[in-house]
Amino acid sequence: MSCLFCAIIAGDEPASIVLETDDVVGFLDIRPVFKGHVLVLPRSHHETLVDLPAPLLEPLFAQVQRLSHAVLDGLDAHGTFVAMNNVVSQSVPHAHVHVVPRRRKDGLRGFFWPRTRYENAAEAETFAERVRDALKR
Amino acid sequence: MSCLFCAIIAGDEPASIVLETDDVVGFLDIRPVFKGHVLVLPRSHHETLVDLPAPLLEPLFAQVQRLSHAVLDGLDAHGTFVAMNNVVSQSVPHAHVHVVPRRRKDGLRGFFWPRTRYENAAEAETFAERVRDALKR
Repeated sequence: MSCLFCAIIAGDEPASIVLETDDVVGFLDIRPVFKGHVLVLPRSHHETLVDLPAPLLEPLFAQVQRLSHAVLDGLDAHGTFVAMNNVVSQSVPHAHVHVVPRRRKDGLRGFFWPRTRYENAAEAETFAERVRDALKR
Repeated sequence: MSCLFCAIIAGDEPASIVLETDDVVGFLDIRPVFKGHVLVLPRSHHETLVDLPAPLLEPLFAQVQRLSHAVLDGLDAHGTFVAMNNVVSQSVPHAHVHVVPRRRKDGLRGFFWPRTRYENAAEAETFAERVRDALKR
């Protein structure tokens, strides 16, 4: 078994487990963005969001929602950052959702969302059209 | 109507719409992290992830998954960054999921995931316990 997260789910590697359902497991990220940062993932091995079978979406995101509540309630957070890195920046290729407690003025903003701009409306439209075309495939 | 995203959904504000279903709309973020960055959101107004009614989770994340496919296929991306900012760093208080095309060596990594460490296993356990307790409420 070469997947670290499968090994954690099987009990063969240690983790601070916070949640277990039939389909989903949650445990602390050992390198948290902020302490209390949790990973939520399907028990079954699928690499990324696009690989998840449709029947897993609701069970997975219902637990993501539940953990978002718990992080707000239990860690006195003001908000949450909920995210998946798929392929790029994804350290373990077993699909997982990060639930990170956020506080106002927690210092993350500057790091976080570098933004660009479209040159003009026509350039934006070319990107929109490429996405629309791909949705038809 | 004071919500920008409700106004876009109603057709009262312009946007580059890429996807519309009965429950969900997708359009380009006008300040993209990378060009082709899409926002996916429920038509109905709910502020954050924890406010979403349970029956909306599957329709919303099914379209997030579909758009993740489309971004990979249509924009020659290697991966995706899928994220929600809830309350903190959330610019428009109408729950929305960012789907951002990523490429290897796209320069985002350094900005992106500042990480800390737990002092020791006992400290991690105290955080896990607070989350577990909150899940019982």
